[in-house]
Amino acid sequence: MTAPAALADAPLLRAARGLPAWRVPVWFMRQAGRSLPEYRALRGDGSILDAIGDPATSAEITLQPVRRYGVDAAILFSDIVVPAAAIGFGVDVVPGIGPVVTDPFRTKADLARLRPYEPAIDAPYVQDTVRLVVDELGATTPLIGFAGAPFTVASYLIEGRPSRTYGLTKAMMHAEPDLWRELLDRLADMAIASLLAQIDAGASAIQLFDSWAGALPPDVYEDLVMPASAKVFAAIEATGVPRIHFGVGTGELLTLMGDAGADVVGVDWRVPLDIARARVPGKAVQGNLDPAICLAPWPVVAERTRDVLLRNAGRPGHIFNLGHGVTPDLDPGILKAVVDLVHEEGRTDG
Amino acid sequence: MTAPAALADAPLLRAARGLPAWRVPVWFMRQAGRSLPEYRALRGDGSILDAIGDPATSAEITLQPVRRYGVDAAILFSDIVVPAAAIGFGVDVVPGIGPVVTDPFRTKADLARLRPYEPAIDAPYVQDTVRLVVDELGATTPLIGFAGAPFTVASYLIEGRPSRTYGLTKAMMHAEPDLWRELLDRLADMAIASLLAQIDAGASAIQLFDSWAGALPPDVYEDLVMPASAKVFAAIEATGVPRIHFGVGTGELLTLMGDAGADVVGVDWRVPLDIARARVPGKAVQGNLDPAICLAPWPVVAERTRDVLLRNAGRPGHIFNLGHGVTPDLDPGILKAVVDLVHEEGRTDG
Repeated sequence: MTAPAALADAPLLRAARGLPAWRVPVWFMRQAGRSLPEYRALRGDGSILDAIGDPATSAEITLQPVRRYGVDAAILFSDIVVPAAAIGFGVDVVPGIGPVVTDPFRTKADLARLRPYEPAIDAPYVQDTVRLVVDELGATTPLIGFAGAPFTVASYLIEGRPSRTYGLTKAMMHAEPDLWRELLDRLADMAIASLLAQIDAGASAIQLFDSWAGALPPDVYEDLVMPASAKVFAAIEATGVPRIHFGVGTGELLTLMGDAGADVVGVDWRVPLDIARARVPGKAVQGNLDPAICLAPWPVVAERTRDVLLRNAGRPGHIFNLGHGVTPDLDPGILKAVVDLVHEEGRTDG
Repeated sequence: MTAPAALADAPLLRAARGLPAWRVPVWFMRQAGRSLPEYRALRGDGSILDAIGDPATSAEITLQPVRRYGVDAAILFSDIVVPAAAIGFGVDVVPGIGPVVTDPFRTKADLARLRPYEPAIDAPYVQDTVRLVVDELGATTPLIGFAGAPFTVASYLIEGRPSRTYGLTKAMMHAEPDLWRELLDRLADMAIASLLAQIDAGASAIQLFDSWAGALPPDVYEDLVMPASAKVFAAIEATGVPRIHFGVGTGELLTLMGDAGADVVGVDWRVPLDIARARVPGKAVQGNLDPAICLAPWPVVAERTRDVLLRNAGRPGHIFNLGHGVTPDLDPGILKAVVDLVHEEGRTDG
């Protein structure tokens, strides 16, 4: 088969809908970022939020990995705290640490600091970036819009900085469920506004990042997290763009994350892809090469890449990706070789 | 029922064998440690390895939580790098960081630095501590012996310090499988020697800590990790003491971790206990309260504690524990209340 001329026929969009595609689509979470020398050259040492706030820079960063790797999608260069930062909640992304909140969300009074997010006013640079990227990508490569899921954004706002245990977040979820639900509802509205603006500007798929949802047991996720994520997916449904739902360490949550309203469920490397597919019947899957394995020599990476393809057994509805984001220490040459291998050997006829 | 007079009838040992007990046994991983003021008063600022090297101090630390909480077992105060440190591999435990290795294990030449561990010569203080503790505990409370599993110890020796991705470890596993297997075999022998010495001195159960095995997918675990852990369990079998196997994030590995030869499989909080039991047929289970939830007010902790008991439905073969270790910020009063609740409401008649 040959490359189609229409965006709707792009492998990523067809796979996301569970349809056969002319090749297995592949992209990498955090493909735009510190592993690329051209990114480091462009970014320098400033805050990532400054780079995101500059459409020319941000569009260029978004496009760099598409050029280098020939991946089947761009993903908007962004950060899950962009909307919260844009409404002035007081959050920055500190190099070497991650999101840091000056005054973390701790009580009901903090709700007043979470006013509705108005993308066109609060962060017009996001739509500008999307437009620049979509223009440049042309008719065959989709741009994936980007938003943080309510739980994961809330965990940053509450903990104040990256956490390994989410103790303050879990305490609030259980001790003050009404406050928690209100917080998540507001963050859901924020994600909805952000995603709709990105779609309006030309994004043709979206990914909701609930990176740390895997810290929760299924009953807690279902009761206190899933409703807010489901609200986001439901609000996007009318646009018709495919919805990807991602988290790490989510083996026990895969079914629920699909049921929340995703078309595609992300799978990290802990769950073999054949087993993951059985947990999300009727959904497409995205994953699931271990990013850490990409530090090994190429024959090892090739073997593990083939293992992922083999476990999918050529079924339609597979978007090849890493199980988590590209880490800064990965060799772009290895990632390029993964893309080529998936394109050469992947098939969607099974 | 009332407390039995013989150690073999201790609830923990009966539960570990899948037998009904007069109460549901409970203990906490890392129950001896920084969450206890009496521990901080005793320890001061020295290296944990110095405290472990002093039998009087180490025995006292091991006993502190038994006195305070009334838990059903003591666990030897130790660290998974104790044998490697004792043979002079060059590893220390740095406060606020964790195990740090001066010259990490990187090539075949490093095997020469891993000579056999001889507990009576290299670390006589371990057996001395065990004897002091067992004397003090008397006839009704068992002491659980402690060893790091080959994979998790190897990850520290290779990475050189705590890692989130285990990239160097995974690269070696796959790129140099012969070297990796030899390394794990030596670490298995080290764990065996350590555990047999502890049992010889009076430990009446053992736990093999493979804390980070959950970073691996099942096929990799089965091929490159499980054989070494199975060697450890097989070597302990003849002693007749129950064998507990623990890791975190191991939902996909539970069956294999049981099949490695454990009598009891540890379960973190991500897998509901009823589902976990189905994955380890014929085995006892240990867990699975989320330690982070213990930062919440007591009614929340009580509800989640009852949920664990409810999911076990009174079946014999449940050792109540946290899903991971006690963190320094936990209130000992909450943990004491958990012990009391489990003892009051837990049952093993279902």
